[in-house]
Amino acid sequence: MIRYEHCTILTMDDKDTIIKDGSMVVANGKIISLGTESEMIKTYPQSARIDLGGRLVMPGLINNHFHLAQSLFRGFSDDMTIVPWLFERIWPLQSAHDEKTFLAGARLAMLEMSKSGTTTFVESMVVNYGLDALFEEVSSSGMRGRLAKVVMEPREGSLLPPALTQELNSSIKEAKNCRRNVTNPDMVDIWLGPRWTGMYNPHLIEVVNGVMDDDGFISTIHFAEESADIEAMKADGYSSPGVFLKGSGMLDRRYLLIHCPRLGTGDLDILAKGKVTIAHCPVSAMKMAMGYLDVPGLLEKGVAVGIGTDAPACNNSSDLLAEIKTAALLHKHQLGRPDVLSAGLALGMGTRIGARSIFAEDIIGSLEVGKRADFITIDLDYAAPFPEYNLPSSVVYSLCGRDVRDVFVDGKQLVKDGLSLIYDEEKVRSDARQAMITLLKRTNL
Amino acid sequence: MIRYEHCTILTMDDKDTIIKDGSMVVANGKIISLGTESEMIKTYPQSARIDLGGRLVMPGLINNHFHLAQSLFRGFSDDMTIVPWLFERIWPLQSAHDEKTFLAGARLAMLEMSKSGTTTFVESMVVNYGLDALFEEVSSSGMRGRLAKVVMEPREGSLLPPALTQELNSSIKEAKNCRRNVTNPDMVDIWLGPRWTGMYNPHLIEVVNGVMDDDGFISTIHFAEESADIEAMKADGYSSPGVFLKGSGMLDRRYLLIHCPRLGTGDLDILAKGKVTIAHCPVSAMKMAMGYLDVPGLLEKGVAVGIGTDAPACNNSSDLLAEIKTAALLHKHQLGRPDVLSAGLALGMGTRIGARSIFAEDIIGSLEVGKRADFITIDLDYAAPFPEYNLPSSVVYSLCGRDVRDVFVDGKQLVKDGLSLIYDEEKVRSDARQAMITLLKRTNL
Repeated sequence: MIRYEHCTILTMDDKDTIIKDGSMVVANGKIISLGTESEMIKTYPQSARIDLGGRLVMPGLINNHFHLAQSLFRGFSDDMTIVPWLFERIWPLQSAHDEKTFLAGARLAMLEMSKSGTTTFVESMVVNYGLDALFEEVSSSGMRGRLAKVVMEPREGSLLPPALTQELNSSIKEAKNCRRNVTNPDMVDIWLGPRWTGMYNPHLIEVVNGVMDDDGFISTIHFAEESADIEAMKADGYSSPGVFLKGSGMLDRRYLLIHCPRLGTGDLDILAKGKVTIAHCPVSAMKMAMGYLDVPGLLEKGVAVGIGTDAPACNNSSDLLAEIKTAALLHKHQLGRPDVLSAGLALGMGTRIGARSIFAEDIIGSLEVGKRADFITIDLDYAAPFPEYNLPSSVVYSLCGRDVRDVFVDGKQLVKDGLSLIYDEEKVRSDARQAMITLLKRTNL
Repeated sequence: MIRYEHCTILTMDDKDTIIKDGSMVVANGKIISLGTESEMIKTYPQSARIDLGGRLVMPGLINNHFHLAQSLFRGFSDDMTIVPWLFERIWPLQSAHDEKTFLAGARLAMLEMSKSGTTTFVESMVVNYGLDALFEEVSSSGMRGRLAKVVMEPREGSLLPPALTQELNSSIKEAKNCRRNVTNPDMVDIWLGPRWTGMYNPHLIEVVNGVMDDDGFISTIHFAEESADIEAMKADGYSSPGVFLKGSGMLDRRYLLIHCPRLGTGDLDILAKGKVTIAHCPVSAMKMAMGYLDVPGLLEKGVAVGIGTDAPACNNSSDLLAEIKTAALLHKHQLGRPDVLSAGLALGMGTRIGARSIFAEDIIGSLEVGKRADFITIDLDYAAPFPEYNLPSSVVYSLCGRDVRDVFVDGKQLVKDGLSLIYDEEKVRSDARQAMITLLKRTNL
């Protein structure tokens, strides 16, 4: 049992409780009590203590959408339109991955995510370069991971390169096999990542729905992203993506939908009635000019919209605090209202609401008794000299991931004073460089 | 003479020259040579040397728009619509300033700007709480400053509080008097900051034009920001803000226009024919939902659009690198084109083009022989493991102000390894806190 003391606690609970002169008691990776320092000293007088030096304590951040396979491609394909970006750069490089290069990128990404305060992430699309190996890697990293195995139904005319293609049954089998290794799904779990190759595929969804029902999988899928998909849905009698969600049975299952810039206004009400959640990635949406999703509207209707950084190939940063700030800015601008998506609500998308969107609100997302001890400490001194006026605002608008000092997951410390306790940082960076050189040689890029 | 060596030099010159294994020789605050390390060693074998440890060297950043008087109000007025923001928070607090509280905020802002790589800034609006004192403060800070004295013509019905109001003649006199102290206008200069109180005022512009012509002042003005101004212009026969610029003679003078979200499409061509430049502040424009300015369109027509962070009251950060990233994201999103406002062009807005927009391209904005030695070093290691693929992209999309390690202005080092050499950081922060407490007591807020 450890009593973390001398801190301000931004709990991110339902009541937005902030505890000044706070202290939090953790045992076996779980929060067993929190309150003012004097209360905690009285209740747990014998506990071991760690002095946090007046820092802010808040829940670890939850990154709803990532592509580990693109970790190495940062800066290699910027300011390009989508077709050459994908066909000339991303897909050839990704096709050249083997397990070793893939893991080198995954480690770099996990190093960067953890150092900037992310404690849980969703990897949306592991193709065929090492799901089992990735499972081991994430398990040993100490981070929480949700690793979605791509399941797809290749079809004639699909533009996806052969190396990124896999048969439906074999991909499902791979997911099921790997999931047998899962001993603590609260830490690392295997999801499904249905992928529509070439155009939308209701049969794939039928199959995936069945596997989800039979085996309890959660799925994550890029959705309502391409106009061609929407047109195909319409041709099949679904007047909008929302109507398809309902008709296909997706709405009643645990799907984390990614991006969704082409959801119609009426779809918002349909979504409000279902289980599905959404991963919003404002930086990549803006950088790739994907279009706009009315996130404040969805949140108002009670849909859990979490936040993700997407891949380093299209964001170039894994800093979820920077992502949260961008979300707040984007929606005020787009809707012409400075009062939408407040700092507190935007920060909620990276914590409490983010936990709901990955169906894990019972264990993470806020600092409350009974939840797992996933928390970070932040140094407010540099850029937020007046944090007391509005603590969420200071965190969202004035700070960035570089201000994160300590990171704990399940009670275990992963980052201390800004340095990783898990990884040899220099080795991770040099292995990543070497892996990228290998990919460039293989692809002649 | 000092030879800075062991670095990569991102010159930001017209040809986007990048020098690997670079070295730069500085004497008397001026760049006298730069090139590869071996060249420089050969030419200047006896020079004193400073090893930059493989860091990136690039021009100091130029912040085109700031309000030092709002430095203390960070986090006190977020997510609010403009009217209560201004009337209930900003103006009352600003009215309560005296010289001491104003300077405490100014020091905090200069500390933060310099630490994050800004070497030159434009303060747009000093009212009546100490222009001379600010001039001294900025001069001793070592930063380059352009300090605009508010000039205004108070009128019936203006909503501006009396404490922020000043008579036209006395404000012009104050500007002229202070300007007599200027000994090195390349370092700190006094500008005019015309302010329209209540509605647009062509007479004020007539007077300011005259003072600019007689005394060589440069001016900066919030422009095309309010629909009421545009309507009043139309009622006076000017069909658009651009037509007013032309008719009023502003177009042919050195005006740095601020924000300008209500410039019409036709105005872009008018601007292209004049001397005026623009300060673009994407974060505050988005956060306050001000509207959209077609910056890529203006740049394409050759208008110098620089970049500014605006006030900490409406941005909450003075990090110009973060601002530059936001600019790149905003315009791609708004125009639906991932290929507009590339990283290199966005970075240019904070350097080479930013120097043009403050009429200082002969002395700063790029690292070239003959220019002043304003440069920063950046640690690429943390977030940009593959900088060689696209160096501007690494700087813009992956880094932030926290990665700036050293800052030099006019050859003098202001920041070393991330720490200020000019300010006692703890004292600056604690004085700022104390000043804000004073303002809150005075205003009962």
